[in-house]
Amino acid sequence: MPVNYSTPAAEHLFPVPGVRLGITQAGIRKANRRDLLLVALEPGSRVAGVFTRNRFCAAPVHVCRSHLAQSEIRALVVNTGIANAGTGEPGMQAAQQTCAAVAEVLGLNAQQVLPFSTGVILEPLPVERLVAGLPGCAADLQENNWHDAAHAIMTTDTVAKAASRQIVLAGKTITITGISKGAGMIRPNMATMLGFVATDAALSPALTQQLVKEAADGSFNCITVDGDTSTNDSFILMATGKAGNAEISDAASAEYQALAEAVCAIALELAQAIIRDGEGATKFITVHVEGGQNEAECKQVGYAIAHSPLTKTAFFASDPNLGRILAAVGYAGIDDLDVSGVRMWLDDVLVSKDGGRNPEYREEQGAAVMKQAEITIRIDLGRGDATASVWTCDLSYDYVKINADYRS
Amino acid sequence: MPVNYSTPAAEHLFPVPGVRLGITQAGIRKANRRDLLLVALEPGSRVAGVFTRNRFCAAPVHVCRSHLAQSEIRALVVNTGIANAGTGEPGMQAAQQTCAAVAEVLGLNAQQVLPFSTGVILEPLPVERLVAGLPGCAADLQENNWHDAAHAIMTTDTVAKAASRQIVLAGKTITITGISKGAGMIRPNMATMLGFVATDAALSPALTQQLVKEAADGSFNCITVDGDTSTNDSFILMATGKAGNAEISDAASAEYQALAEAVCAIALELAQAIIRDGEGATKFITVHVEGGQNEAECKQVGYAIAHSPLTKTAFFASDPNLGRILAAVGYAGIDDLDVSGVRMWLDDVLVSKDGGRNPEYREEQGAAVMKQAEITIRIDLGRGDATASVWTCDLSYDYVKINADYRS
Repeated sequence: MPVNYSTPAAEHLFPVPGVRLGITQAGIRKANRRDLLLVALEPGSRVAGVFTRNRFCAAPVHVCRSHLAQSEIRALVVNTGIANAGTGEPGMQAAQQTCAAVAEVLGLNAQQVLPFSTGVILEPLPVERLVAGLPGCAADLQENNWHDAAHAIMTTDTVAKAASRQIVLAGKTITITGISKGAGMIRPNMATMLGFVATDAALSPALTQQLVKEAADGSFNCITVDGDTSTNDSFILMATGKAGNAEISDAASAEYQALAEAVCAIALELAQAIIRDGEGATKFITVHVEGGQNEAECKQVGYAIAHSPLTKTAFFASDPNLGRILAAVGYAGIDDLDVSGVRMWLDDVLVSKDGGRNPEYREEQGAAVMKQAEITIRIDLGRGDATASVWTCDLSYDYVKINADYRS
Repeated sequence: MPVNYSTPAAEHLFPVPGVRLGITQAGIRKANRRDLLLVALEPGSRVAGVFTRNRFCAAPVHVCRSHLAQSEIRALVVNTGIANAGTGEPGMQAAQQTCAAVAEVLGLNAQQVLPFSTGVILEPLPVERLVAGLPGCAADLQENNWHDAAHAIMTTDTVAKAASRQIVLAGKTITITGISKGAGMIRPNMATMLGFVATDAALSPALTQQLVKEAADGSFNCITVDGDTSTNDSFILMATGKAGNAEISDAASAEYQALAEAVCAIALELAQAIIRDGEGATKFITVHVEGGQNEAECKQVGYAIAHSPLTKTAFFASDPNLGRILAAVGYAGIDDLDVSGVRMWLDDVLVSKDGGRNPEYREEQGAAVMKQAEITIRIDLGRGDATASVWTCDLSYDYVKINADYRS
């Protein structure tokens, strides 16, 4: 059960002119589930991506990087079930075969196709079953298919994740719609599990590249379920240019700022949905760190708290055993941190100051906050003006259960 | 239930001449449990320690550092129940009061006493109850009390941890006996939870200091349960000089090498006992990384694997979902790692090579190893001659249960 999240209804996901989506059941790993998604883009679309920094990155990630560098991208293909990671040279061949097959079905070059895979690592991709599913995907291609597409990329997700909004730029209505997947192995580094956001805005290639990074940095790069950076993390921004606006090419323009704000908001919604649906999650936790000398140290402290199994189990138990949070602040790696200047709040309750417990703090106050489904931990490092937020969930029996049972 | 570990019988723990131990029930946090330990050292003993790097280190850690720098140490006092960490200035006063009370009971100066606390963070130390327990401890002081002492320092430990051996140096019998505690919040950094090792060897102050660091680096600094570095980690080496050997003051001498080997072995045994008794542990896992450019990067990879919740739950489930280990290798932070040179074994089974699965690997082989209670993960990074080992345990339902319930 995700924490305060449900998939938006299909009618709330605006189609993006220039983007068609088709899905099918290809039987990649399990029967009777939608597991293959094809996305077709009109000519002239700009596509940019950010990818995992995991050195064991999946074969499709290698192929995406290469294709993005050399061609105008016209199609994306996404399978769930098998990650095609830790698969060596045969995995590279499977990803390339996949692109070639998509190219044949849609009349493109293989270099115009981006492949994505998610699922079990170290097992071979059944590329014949994937290829056999492509004609079904192609026959299903339609603009009004985001809701089904969100379902087709799920693995251990319990809900499909999607977000959509429209803004008006210089009199033109601009649509932004996206989907994401992920629930475990989540500690993205320069990208998410899988996230796809499309807009019909006309946007220069350079700004498409800038915006995909900006959006990832403020969203998918601020979340963690278990600290495990996946082999397949990818976040893609597509801009079809069908909205009729004059191409945005100035990062300082009001148009870019408005579009960036909307795209970043969609990315944040999709990223937070992953945490709300975190494996076994019963709480949605915002860790806000302020008073740092720079953003990097704020994030470092935020992640130390968000990764601490002791902190996460205490939240699961609704037990205000909050010394565990101070311990995480203490080992986050700021070697010259003066702990007497550190303050900690749980929502609006000041729990700790002057290196110890706030004398006015009463455990009932902490206990009341801990019972909530959404909680903010606020840390003031007391040594500067920088801030950062990180989002995470608690650690429950079900996290263990899900990951102990995942393949069975 | 610890993995292949039980407390040595009292008669297997050799007394160390010059060290007397006394315990009592002081009711620090719970009634009817041994929770206070007093250690008295004969004049002339050399004492050295290494301590947590956590910035929120506990008040007693501050006091230990200060007292070690200024005085000949003659006593240690250890309470369980309350960690006296995150307690600010009142916590410092409580630790100093404790030392003063010990000094009064034993006829010493307060600066000759080292205080240690373990238990809940952010709660005040009931120093009156602790002080009231000291005469009982003093009345109980005897050399043959290591077994009870090991019990008096437990928190969530399910077994008391102790180790002992004798060696002969230049015709003199030398005894080394130690105890440790810890089961969760374990990712020591330059020290352990609590570990105390004593020997009657005569050892120079400089070598006592060198040996405590050497022993910690090869043992307590290579273990992790949950990656949480505690506020109270302390490891103390005491050398009473009562064995009658000529004082060892040359690090290159055969006597130092033999003593160091024995002390390091005792420290490793005590450190591994903590992992075998790791909260909820059902498996004892050795992560051995070889072929690195330096020891630091081997340890980095070892810890990435040992901290990965996904790897740890797979071991709990005996599920050879081994791509998770490769993913951890990939995100360990070696930016120029060539994954095609990486090989992975589970015990003697070669699971992965050439960036993918070993074609001859069969899942039954992995499954057979995963069923064992003790498992070695071996990674060859294929880029150098350095090696490192890290020890950890799996992540089970019981870890969550123990930490969700700890204070209740």
